[in-house]
Amino acid sequence: MERIRLGMVGGGEGAFIGGVHRIASRIDGRFDLVAGAFSSTPERSRASGEALGVDPKRTYDDFAAMAKREARLKDGIEAVSIVTPNHVHYAAAREFLKRGIHVICDKPLTSTLADARKLVALAEKSDAIFILTHNYTGYPMVRQAREMVAAGEIGVIRVVQVEYPQDWLAEDLESTGQKQAGWRTDPEQSGAGGSTGDIGTHAYNLAGFVTGLRCEALSADLDSFVSGRRLDDNAHVMLRYENGAKGMLWCSQVAPGNENGLRLRVYGEKGGLEWKQEDPNYLWQAPLGEPKRLLTRNGAGATEGNLAGSRIPAGHPEGYLEGFANIYADAAEMILAAREGETAETLAPTVHDGLDGMRFVDACVRSSKKDAGWVTL
Amino acid sequence: MERIRLGMVGGGEGAFIGGVHRIASRIDGRFDLVAGAFSSTPERSRASGEALGVDPKRTYDDFAAMAKREARLKDGIEAVSIVTPNHVHYAAAREFLKRGIHVICDKPLTSTLADARKLVALAEKSDAIFILTHNYTGYPMVRQAREMVAAGEIGVIRVVQVEYPQDWLAEDLESTGQKQAGWRTDPEQSGAGGSTGDIGTHAYNLAGFVTGLRCEALSADLDSFVSGRRLDDNAHVMLRYENGAKGMLWCSQVAPGNENGLRLRVYGEKGGLEWKQEDPNYLWQAPLGEPKRLLTRNGAGATEGNLAGSRIPAGHPEGYLEGFANIYADAAEMILAAREGETAETLAPTVHDGLDGMRFVDACVRSSKKDAGWVTL
Amino acid sequence: MERIRLGMVGGGEGAFIGGVHRIASRIDGRFDLVAGAFSSTPERSRASGEALGVDPKRTYDDFAAMAKREARLKDGIEAVSIVTPNHVHYAAAREFLKRGIHVICDKPLTSTLADARKLVALAEKSDAIFILTHNYTGYPMVRQAREMVAAGEIGVIRVVQVEYPQDWLAEDLESTGQKQAGWRTDPEQSGAGGSTGDIGTHAYNLAGFVTGLRCEALSADLDSFVSGRRLDDNAHVMLRYENGAKGMLWCSQVAPGNENGLRLRVYGEKGGLEWKQEDPNYLWQAPLGEPKRLLTRNGAGATEGNLAGSRIPAGHPEGYLEGFANIYADAAEMILAAREGETAETLAPTVHDGLDGMRFVDACVRSSKKDAGWVTL
Amino acid sequence: MERIRLGMVGGGEGAFIGGVHRIASRIDGRFDLVAGAFSSTPERSRASGEALGVDPKRTYDDFAAMAKREARLKDGIEAVSIVTPNHVHYAAAREFLKRGIHVICDKPLTSTLADARKLVALAEKSDAIFILTHNYTGYPMVRQAREMVAAGEIGVIRVVQVEYPQDWLAEDLESTGQKQAGWRTDPEQSGAGGSTGDIGTHAYNLAGFVTGLRCEALSADLDSFVSGRRLDDNAHVMLRYENGAKGMLWCSQVAPGNENGLRLRVYGEKGGLEWKQEDPNYLWQAPLGEPKRLLTRNGAGATEGNLAGSRIPAGHPEGYLEGFANIYADAAEMILAAREGETAETLAPTVHDGLDGMRFVDACVRSSKKDAGWVTL
Repeated sequence: MERIRLGMVGGGEGAFIGGVHRIASRIDGRFDLVAGAFSSTPERSRASGEALGVDPKRTYDDFAAMAKREARLKDGIEAVSIVTPNHVHYAAAREFLKRGIHVICDKPLTSTLADARKLVALAEKSDAIFILTHNYTGYPMVRQAREMVAAGEIGVIRVVQVEYPQDWLAEDLESTGQKQAGWRTDPEQSGAGGSTGDIGTHAYNLAGFVTGLRCEALSADLDSFVSGRRLDDNAHVMLRYENGAKGMLWCSQVAPGNENGLRLRVYGEKGGLEWKQEDPNYLWQAPLGEPKRLLTRNGAGATEGNLAGSRIPAGHPEGYLEGFANIYADAAEMILAAREGETAETLAPTVHDGLDGMRFVDACVRSSKKDAGWVTL
Repeated sequence: MERIRLGMVGGGEGAFIGGVHRIASRIDGRFDLVAGAFSSTPERSRASGEALGVDPKRTYDDFAAMAKREARLKDGIEAVSIVTPNHVHYAAAREFLKRGIHVICDKPLTSTLADARKLVALAEKSDAIFILTHNYTGYPMVRQAREMVAAGEIGVIRVVQVEYPQDWLAEDLESTGQKQAGWRTDPEQSGAGGSTGDIGTHAYNLAGFVTGLRCEALSADLDSFVSGRRLDDNAHVMLRYENGAKGMLWCSQVAPGNENGLRLRVYGEKGGLEWKQEDPNYLWQAPLGEPKRLLTRNGAGATEGNLAGSRIPAGHPEGYLEGFANIYADAAEMILAAREGETAETLAPTVHDGLDGMRFVDACVRSSKKDAGWVTL
Repeated sequence: MERIRLGMVGGGEGAFIGGVHRIASRIDGRFDLVAGAFSSTPERSRASGEALGVDPKRTYDDFAAMAKREARLKDGIEAVSIVTPNHVHYAAAREFLKRGIHVICDKPLTSTLADARKLVALAEKSDAIFILTHNYTGYPMVRQAREMVAAGEIGVIRVVQVEYPQDWLAEDLESTGQKQAGWRTDPEQSGAGGSTGDIGTHAYNLAGFVTGLRCEALSADLDSFVSGRRLDDNAHVMLRYENGAKGMLWCSQVAPGNENGLRLRVYGEKGGLEWKQEDPNYLWQAPLGEPKRLLTRNGAGATEGNLAGSRIPAGHPEGYLEGFANIYADAAEMILAAREGETAETLAPTVHDGLDGMRFVDACVRSSKKDAGWVTL
Repeated sequence: MERIRLGMVGGGEGAFIGGVHRIASRIDGRFDLVAGAFSSTPERSRASGEALGVDPKRTYDDFAAMAKREARLKDGIEAVSIVTPNHVHYAAAREFLKRGIHVICDKPLTSTLADARKLVALAEKSDAIFILTHNYTGYPMVRQAREMVAAGEIGVIRVVQVEYPQDWLAEDLESTGQKQAGWRTDPEQSGAGGSTGDIGTHAYNLAGFVTGLRCEALSADLDSFVSGRRLDDNAHVMLRYENGAKGMLWCSQVAPGNENGLRLRVYGEKGGLEWKQEDPNYLWQAPLGEPKRLLTRNGAGATEGNLAGSRIPAGHPEGYLEGFANIYADAAEMILAAREGETAETLAPTVHDGLDGMRFVDACVRSSKKDAGWVTL
């Protein structure tokens, strides 16, 4: 089993997603975290590096220095995980991409649509691989859903219902100094979208991943229900897809009782599919006119993507971290192929998915400003 | 136990909702069905009357004759259930209201907004009671939800999510001669709304009943996915309520796997509530920052409306027919009070609720015609 | 629609099951309650009769007088519902059976096995029909389960898991004067079984109804967890069926969080079935090696018994009262046939099912007394 | 972050649990797999070692050689995971324990009760730590359940219901050459218990872990439903606990539709708890007389053990591998403390839990042989 040398930008103390990336990178044993610029505060970066067992010489004060030096090292990192607040993604990714270091970047792609476009151009020019961790596409049952749609099992799609409600921002948490709430509600760090950027992009991406449909236009009604909040914390969005299919998307951070209620329902002429992130080992299939079937991870009727994304038998639940690890497994496959000068096709989200997500956020904001008028993406 | 003499307009062979009204009227033993104009086809009316054990002399060929004669009989009907296709509601109700016979009318109120307005005027002028069977408001847990909202248990409402998906019209059933599909997809009989009129009004009414909020404006994207269908079979609607609350409403008759998936979720500053029609004996309460609680019909924590609407102990499920019967129980209470010259306050939906539903349908159609622009109700 | 004249023994104020029988008898409009001995206290009987709108002349102080007089009346009752505490069933049923009046009796059959045997003999001698309201067998999905087993859809049965947990007797409710708790925990009125008689018999009967298997032996460990309680409030039972199938039965009145948690699971060589009383419109089918399917009342894949037992479309839940009403519908069918000198075959439970239930209770008590040794039924 | 050098016995190609242990050891990044005797077939051991990136010099043909050499190496393994079929556990554990190498052993403890007793003696004599991977006790909600019981939240326990149904052995899989089925149904490799040993021990252990109660006696009815099977594939067991509490345990490998349906319900005087392995992020709490509450992993109301065992926020499901990793986290904590000459108290299952499990299997077999008579453990 060949291993890949990995670096990380961001993910120091108090971070959430950095720890997730680290676990995801470890689950299949294909990555070694050997370098990092874990914080923009040098002391915190070093403390985090030490806690993580990273060689102090390879714990950097800033990502630019890291990219520069690691690119020269004989055993420098081959890939980097970028897990900072959104506004840093672009600048950080640029440093690594231009040096041919593969990038695994958290979503949304950037904090501005302009940055997103520039990043796409950089990624296209670079020999390095760019992967965006829209991790929900790594769940085995989501991959099965995509495959079933592609195989025509539900027929031509008519209706898409997707939602991602949470409740953690139902109160003014950002004023309490909570770090996650702080940057996620700050336009400087997050970009123009609040809930739309943080979780709406996931919902939007998931719908596109499963249906294979391109969204052409949307109408969005955004709110900031918590007094003083500077970004949206609830969004109601109507979607129009390329083939005449219609969709609704709801994302919210102020819906009490919802932890991470991402849910997708897709209805076609011949059947329906339903999947929930909080119970991810199951997929409901409803063939029109027949009883509903409950498909399971690694269970009877599993498709190739379900099987490939499963590590353990049906009935032993795999969760969020394993789904996330499937994106890392895709990354590993692509990186190892690249070592040999080859290209591996995987389902890992790309920089183009990232740009599409930024277009979604931008369109939501534009639409909402003109009273939820339709805007094209 | 005093009993009420009841007549029926519509509800002959092949009908669905007429049978429901009859069972609902029987459950608590307060009504006797003694007269009817069960079909616009005289032979079918008589056959139905005979099958139902109604005296042939009181089985009528048309509702006008029935109203006229029953009003004169010493023991003529005190109330009439109108269970015809929508376009007959107005004319039928008029005949009885003007003679002081109480009307229990199926929804939607009428087939046109103009008729609805006229019917409101008639009902306001009449001494007779007018009740509209938005039967889902009869479920005990729905009444508990309303009481909890009114008591401030979830705080000021921010977000309303309501949906009513079905799948029975996913194919072109109306071309097969199926009676229910026939009239429900026919603008002459149903009115301007398809799914919006048939089930969207229920969803809209339920949201208003529980939240107590008035909807001020909506934006609707309607589709007729089945080729050749003349009325909408799927509707995506964004709602704006009077206090700044926002809502989404989805109704569909083309969503495979959904039988009668009416579901309401309401989120306020202090908590959330969730209820599903297909599992109606439960209500989820999510107080912000606390574990979710599962409230049950007639169970621990039951409110007055829950207890009053329950006939049997918790854990023995009551269903659709019992919820419907609660509207009839309200009707009985109001009618018996009226006998004494008094007025009983109940939760039964009124002609004004009916008008509001017709405004909803009208607004959906108008909005959709102008590319889902906002329209006021 | 021909109607049947019905009387009732028991079911006065404070009763639970009497009201259930009355609603069940009304739902399909085939019975008229025209006579009753509603209480052993004459005043209460009369007050109940008045509240129910029964002619005072046909409201009796005791069931013997009622049987005697009604049998002579030209339009006397054709059938009687016996809804008293258990110890009265035998004597009451005897009076009506010997006069050719059909009996619809609540379960368990009697309070003693000896009485049960005598009642079987009486019923066999009588021309009258005897029906026992093991009402859970009236649920449409239970009937579908029975038909699927009989059709071999799950193959030869290996394992039966049935349970009926409640929590209403988790504390010493009988000492508070609560009427239901009082007689149900009193051996004089209930018989030798507490939870075993009250709900264990339902579970036992349900398992037999669905599987079609006869139980040959059992081993039971009974407890009275509440201090001072005179009858069992929790029972753990292992079952051995005629074909080598094995079962477990748990019934409890002291399991907090359980309202009426009757649940049956049956596993054969080719598949499994699962049904829950609290969510009765669904039946899980698990064909070995295939995804599980969720069958619904009146939905896709419905069998004859499911369809026949359904009144309204799928997705509009029917509940406990409708299941109970299906037993009354069976009774009506049998009684109307008997009027014509014919016999109608229905699925309604019989006096033999009642005797089998009494054998079950007796066996549980005997086994528990010999330290849960095996006893034959 | 200090890391621990880990070896492995068993877990070569075609194994299931070996891969699980490896992932579990990687999730928190505290273990490095540096040595192994992965198979009793030398070629397969070497191939597995190579595939796993283990130094060929430290890939051994047998565990005895491995124990001997690793104990001498300066940077030899500090701990070993034993993931072989049951009959190898004892001999393998002995080699490592006697050399002071910590043992993380899969369950059941051994294949015979005699071996189990000897292993307890060895473990007690050894300075090394011995941990048994009853991994279900690692789930955060299971730890919360234990803490809630210990805190008296459900009062004195009366009833325990635990079950572990599967369906993977519903047919004669062992005759097809399937490796897992082969050894698990072979008394030489598994021991006297089939389903009782493989999954019954998990159920039994889980009940004891949560309730803190010792089981004093049991009555078991074992079956081998699949023709020719040499070990039980279904077991019905009644349990008697030390304080008068009673239990039922069902384990089965022939129950179609069940993947890994481990479920525990515990009922006390003041409340009930329910947990399911297939939906492990939730725990139902039913305080007597109050609505049920749904507690979540890392969510509102989380206890210390829940929080400590959680890596990511509520609503992002953690699964089987994370629960398993919690046992490895306990192991790491104990091993790192041992490095300093100290002792860390954790919830990790011990050799005594293993012996208790073997006593359970032995008692089941003994009881079943005497027609399910009671036997003490």
